[in-house]
Amino acid sequence: MAAKEPLVITAKDEMRKWSRKMRSQGKSIGLVPTMGYLHQGHLSLIQEAHKHSHLIVVSIYVNPGQFSPSEDLSTYPSDLHGDMLKLKSVPGGVDVVFCPKNLYDYNNDSDEKQKNKNGNENLGAGGGDGNGVVSCVEEKGSGHETWVRVERLEKGLCGKSRPVFFRGVATIVTKLFHIVEPDVAVFGKKDYQQWRIIQRMVRDLDFAIEIVGSEITRDSDGLALSSRNVHLSPEERQKALSISRSLSKAKAAAKGQVKCRELKDSAILTITQAGGRIDYAEIVDQENLKSVEEIKGPVVFCIAAWFGKVRLIDNMEIDI
Amino acid sequence: MAAKEPLVITAKDEMRKWSRKMRSQGKSIGLVPTMGYLHQGHLSLIQEAHKHSHLIVVSIYVNPGQFSPSEDLSTYPSDLHGDMLKLKSVPGGVDVVFCPKNLYDYNNDSDEKQKNKNGNENLGAGGGDGNGVVSCVEEKGSGHETWVRVERLEKGLCGKSRPVFFRGVATIVTKLFHIVEPDVAVFGKKDYQQWRIIQRMVRDLDFAIEIVGSEITRDSDGLALSSRNVHLSPEERQKALSISRSLSKAKAAAKGQVKCRELKDSAILTITQAGGRIDYAEIVDQENLKSVEEIKGPVVFCIAAWFGKVRLIDNMEIDI
Repeated sequence: MAAKEPLVITAKDEMRKWSRKMRSQGKSIGLVPTMGYLHQGHLSLIQEAHKHSHLIVVSIYVNPGQFSPSEDLSTYPSDLHGDMLKLKSVPGGVDVVFCPKNLYDYNNDSDEKQKNKNGNENLGAGGGDGNGVVSCVEEKGSGHETWVRVERLEKGLCGKSRPVFFRGVATIVTKLFHIVEPDVAVFGKKDYQQWRIIQRMVRDLDFAIEIVGSEITRDSDGLALSSRNVHLSPEERQKALSISRSLSKAKAAAKGQVKCRELKDSAILTITQAGGRIDYAEIVDQENLKSVEEIKGPVVFCIAAWFGKVRLIDNMEIDI
Repeated sequence: MAAKEPLVITAKDEMRKWSRKMRSQGKSIGLVPTMGYLHQGHLSLIQEAHKHSHLIVVSIYVNPGQFSPSEDLSTYPSDLHGDMLKLKSVPGGVDVVFCPKNLYDYNNDSDEKQKNKNGNENLGAGGGDGNGVVSCVEEKGSGHETWVRVERLEKGLCGKSRPVFFRGVATIVTKLFHIVEPDVAVFGKKDYQQWRIIQRMVRDLDFAIEIVGSEITRDSDGLALSSRNVHLSPEERQKALSISRSLSKAKAAAKGQVKCRELKDSAILTITQAGGRIDYAEIVDQENLKSVEEIKGPVVFCIAAWFGKVRLIDNMEIDI
């Protein structure tokens, strides 16, 4: 298939105008939100989106709202030039690449420009998560203070060690939905909790958008693809294979063993012996992500572990 | 002008379908969200909406998400028949009355119907506001758990005594925006903090909706119109006039007196002597709602006070 040159849009208004024009012509729009540094996993999301809509928008935006100041925002990998080459050659192509500069900058907003004459600092940061935890957005005091919270689902798994993460994800996805106005949005099941949170948010807030979960893409050795893999040394990468290996082992074992404790202990041992540091290893209900002691229905085994300075996540659905 | 019969819609899907059809015909849509028991104040919002859009949708929905279990949800007045008569005769008319039954009921949702086989209670309530405070939605355990928080603006004024109120307002307005998909929405400046919160939310979440604030409508004696006024005894009503009287007095006095302490003390004295119980009396910046000690720019004097079992709010903008 011939390479297709995507339209690059950076302004919110232009993005929305494009979507509305296309919709008025009877075209449906699929959105694939990304933080760039694209790999085959992202490209598989685009291919999935092609099954559900006429046109494809890929957004590339590293969202400061989902990073806490102690996390790896500043070192998050980026390569816009490489991303564009990949997007040009993806089967079926991409219609728009939406690359906004800063989605929390409202300085061009006339409302914001009205200087406060009463001597207070102007607007200031939002209140954080109520426990004094803030994201990089509040740290910069952008004045942004509205956050979407999926209050129960955001708390477990990755939410424990990353307290502002899902608040930031739900908020930026809401913003992107309002700017791009897609009919369908595709999320990778590698970020399983994120996918479930977005599904729940869409239901609870009555978004008219279909959310599609797309299967995990793995390297030939089993490692789940992630932009963060680039930070792994060759040695760490070898060690990190223990995650997918232990998940596959648990899935096979689950046919005879439904007690989660033993499945988890075995995985923790495998990963720890390989040199990983476990953040969590949990077997949870696929729908509500609550921890399960005995497998009686569809569950997902979710693992997060550190290898050196890199935190990796992976998961496997187990349907018995 | 001849009476115009509004279309009554109760289903979300039907509402959205109507809006999309109208928009495809080049019509703009104005939304006036209400909790019913309409009075002249609501009708003035509709007249304001006519200035900004071709078609008018009035929603009538008493939102359990903004009431705490100890508040007056069960006694909030309602009169759908009377409301319909008023809406028929409002100048310019109303195109749609959207009266959903329960916007937090997802039992028809196929996702929700999937019974949890892993033995956990299904979904359960959201986490409340993080301080153990819950709304009537969580009390009923509807499974709704996504909330929109305008974290700084929601905390002051009415937010102090009604900790779940603005979370509930921002969330239901988000839901209504997603269902009705209006171009413009009109809010009364009587609920000044609510109006500013919705403005901020729309900016922060990139809604493509213009928010219009409409002036307070008062009875001939000065009382700000409110659905709750019906609960006042004739005596309490007389006493309640002390609020608007003290606001007018402060506005006049502010020409010579810019120290807020004295303006507030005088108002508190007037209302207390009339038999009211002050919830708050604050002079705040019109934009960021932060308390002001000396008036140097546009401020708004906001008062909430109880008369018997009825809590009333009122405010006056002071631009010197």
